[in-house]
Amino acid sequence: MALDAAMASRLLRPELRIINVGLAMFVEAPEAHGARVAALDWRPPAEGDRATGLALARLEDDDRDPIGRTVAAANAIAVERLLAAQPLLTDVRPARDALGLGERQLLHAGPPIAWDRMCGPVRGAIVGAILFEGWAADPAAAETLAASGAIEFAPCHHRGAVGPMAGIVSPSMPVVVVDNAAGGTRAYATLNEGLGKVLRFGAYDASVLERLAWFRDVLGPSLSVALRTSGPIDLRTLTGQALQMGDEGHNRNMAATSLLVRALAPSIVRSVDSATAVAVLDFLRGNDHFFLNLSMAACKSALDAAHGIPGSSVVTAMSRNGVDFGIRISGTGDRWFTAPVGVPDGLFFPGYGPQDANPDLGDSAITETFGIGGFAMAAAPAIVRFVGGSASDALEFTRLMGRITLAKNPSYALPSLEFAGTPTGIDARRVVDSGIAPVINTGIAHRLAGVGQIGAGIARAPLSCFAEGIRELAATLGVPA
Amino acid sequence: MALDAAMASRLLRPELRIINVGLAMFVEAPEAHGARVAALDWRPPAEGDRATGLALARLEDDDRDPIGRTVAAANAIAVERLLAAQPLLTDVRPARDALGLGERQLLHAGPPIAWDRMCGPVRGAIVGAILFEGWAADPAAAETLAASGAIEFAPCHHRGAVGPMAGIVSPSMPVVVVDNAAGGTRAYATLNEGLGKVLRFGAYDASVLERLAWFRDVLGPSLSVALRTSGPIDLRTLTGQALQMGDEGHNRNMAATSLLVRALAPSIVRSVDSATAVAVLDFLRGNDHFFLNLSMAACKSALDAAHGIPGSSVVTAMSRNGVDFGIRISGTGDRWFTAPVGVPDGLFFPGYGPQDANPDLGDSAITETFGIGGFAMAAAPAIVRFVGGSASDALEFTRLMGRITLAKNPSYALPSLEFAGTPTGIDARRVVDSGIAPVINTGIAHRLAGVGQIGAGIARAPLSCFAEGIRELAATLGVPA
Repeated sequence: MALDAAMASRLLRPELRIINVGLAMFVEAPEAHGARVAALDWRPPAEGDRATGLALARLEDDDRDPIGRTVAAANAIAVERLLAAQPLLTDVRPARDALGLGERQLLHAGPPIAWDRMCGPVRGAIVGAILFEGWAADPAAAETLAASGAIEFAPCHHRGAVGPMAGIVSPSMPVVVVDNAAGGTRAYATLNEGLGKVLRFGAYDASVLERLAWFRDVLGPSLSVALRTSGPIDLRTLTGQALQMGDEGHNRNMAATSLLVRALAPSIVRSVDSATAVAVLDFLRGNDHFFLNLSMAACKSALDAAHGIPGSSVVTAMSRNGVDFGIRISGTGDRWFTAPVGVPDGLFFPGYGPQDANPDLGDSAITETFGIGGFAMAAAPAIVRFVGGSASDALEFTRLMGRITLAKNPSYALPSLEFAGTPTGIDARRVVDSGIAPVINTGIAHRLAGVGQIGAGIARAPLSCFAEGIRELAATLGVPA
Repeated sequence: MALDAAMASRLLRPELRIINVGLAMFVEAPEAHGARVAALDWRPPAEGDRATGLALARLEDDDRDPIGRTVAAANAIAVERLLAAQPLLTDVRPARDALGLGERQLLHAGPPIAWDRMCGPVRGAIVGAILFEGWAADPAAAETLAASGAIEFAPCHHRGAVGPMAGIVSPSMPVVVVDNAAGGTRAYATLNEGLGKVLRFGAYDASVLERLAWFRDVLGPSLSVALRTSGPIDLRTLTGQALQMGDEGHNRNMAATSLLVRALAPSIVRSVDSATAVAVLDFLRGNDHFFLNLSMAACKSALDAAHGIPGSSVVTAMSRNGVDFGIRISGTGDRWFTAPVGVPDGLFFPGYGPQDANPDLGDSAITETFGIGGFAMAAAPAIVRFVGGSASDALEFTRLMGRITLAKNPSYALPSLEFAGTPTGIDARRVVDSGIAPVINTGIAHRLAGVGQIGAGIARAPLSCFAEGIRELAATLGVPA
């Protein structure tokens, strides 16, 4: 059988197909000439760092290696505790009582930081908290006091608390109390102020201080008595519902806030006088973000139950103070692994741009640490309009986070992914191995105190924190450096 | 150049690829032998009926034909009115006042039907309404009265109202009042009773009648005064939000109900005494379906604005009375085109099956007529677990309904379809031409009065209603039969 040459050439020359591993630039030329390219997003483990790579190799799950067995067993326990978590909103109490916060003590978001290194919004919020507590008479005096060393600063995380953005907690502020019944842990967060001029973005004018006083005198006590009337609110169930209603539990909390209000409204009316009930319900009606702080405390209570397991590479906190990004790992105790924090990549409100943005800020990345927020973007396609991107990007973020996590949380099913659970239990090993940084949905604060939110976007955790954590974890297990 | 025969044969025999138009059975055999088949879901227009096909051909958009121009212009007006609709919840009033409903007058769901043809749940609900109104002392007497001809029955639709399932409205029942500010139309619906033993499924025991009395004496008047305190609630905005929160506005209304409660709670507390407010908020807390009836009235108010446009082939009502399925078309006035109604295809609660099911029932298909409910399944992937199917099926239903509708509603953006609007404006021509029947999300009632809901599923509108409507529309435009 004979074929003419051109036909044979066409039949015999298969279409050029390329699988590219790693850098995309290698296939740009063949792709431009019509080749079909499947890109495998691969980077050398540990960004090519030899010491981290060797430590990582010793920590891999390996039945024949006692260290590998230890890490695998420790992670299994950590994941089990994460999935078993049952956070209940039980009370709202003054931080003074709940956290044992004393005079001249303030908590802030992120890893530890001294006044002289703090960013604008955090300094502004500290000035506001000092004025609110009456420790100084005016902003200038408050700033002098803060700089004098007479105020004791500590991370919220060091007291079992979490705070969005600046995350300042002072003794008179009411905090929600969330008990993780399964883990025996308890976590706290301040009450969410809503948008506009608010302390967490560093504002401290009269309206901000008035709202804080109303929180202290009215909202906090009212919610406390309502919760004792209603009994605890199951935040796992409520969050599970909200994830089927367009929330991702970090930047979008409209469903959870609405479900909470609907659940609590009768108890609020039962517990306080009518005028107070109206004021409380009016505030909750106007604040779509109210649930954020509850979401954060719920995640914190779950993650604390998984913290402190020797050998575990599960990440139990990610947080930012506007200067440093810090993480904690279950098996390395209370040490923070930090790196400079970047500006989120996102959309800015009209009139603002990246040059106005403060580097990423707040304890709210605790939601991603537990596997919601940016990890549950598939639940909230509507949010991509807010942070930039398309609905299919939202699915992709969640799928990608599946590659650095150890489990899917069946309590948090994602309808758009055929009811797969949210990816949960960030494994620092997988982050270092894959070079895939955890994604964090975040608001963007103006770098000057008090201007407020100027945008929203996506931040990526710096990989070097995870690499340092892996080396330290290896050291705790006797792996030579 | 020479090739061995086997190689040449393999190279020269392209993989068998088939595009099949119409009946799937023609390609079952080649498909079984490995051929790749692209199925084009095509049926002959008008199911092959010659008279309908000829009428349809004359009604097609055609600039050169005065009839074609009339239909196109009429549909443009109808669609413009649908998209402009701005339904506002303004009040809750007794049906007696709002609808002018008098003694011995009852409204029911679906197209007109006489007592002797009514199904079990509708008869049960009528007995309940007669007892509730005090027109008879016991169920037997109520049934005798209903059968005697002394009760005047009419469709809800004939009074600008809509009712889910049996859809019975009696003079003392409170109805929501929804004003479509843009269209100058007003629509009504009863208050939703929740699940379990309820009148709309034909139950009429003491608990059902007590709840109706509480609606009449407490819930209705409380909501009325709260609405006058709060001002009208914009149902278009609220529904648009809910469609981004997992609701589709028919079988799932959890988000809209929660948003409504959050919006109204302060006004409720302001308007009534504390014990009443607690009772009202407690009822709303426990009823995830409360918004359904509001959703229905909102859709009715929009569709009525698009009704009665000479030449328009836009469907302005789809409804079922448990025996007949009926539709109305804008250009054919108040005439109903009916066909026997089938049993929905869906999932049954444990212990029940298709043999227990009543044929499809209720005015709630008004939601699909407006382009939400089954048409907005893409908004509510969580619902497919309830009615059967997968999350990708949900997207497919919405895409499919795009083929029989004239517009996308930009007020109702669907995140999972990259914020495309819901398909709205069912064109009876496209239904007849494509053979694609509108999908309806629906609850399944037991065929015996009072047993209640036994499942949920998907119903398809019977095609013959649309074919009859098209022939009648053609007749109104002078097309010879």
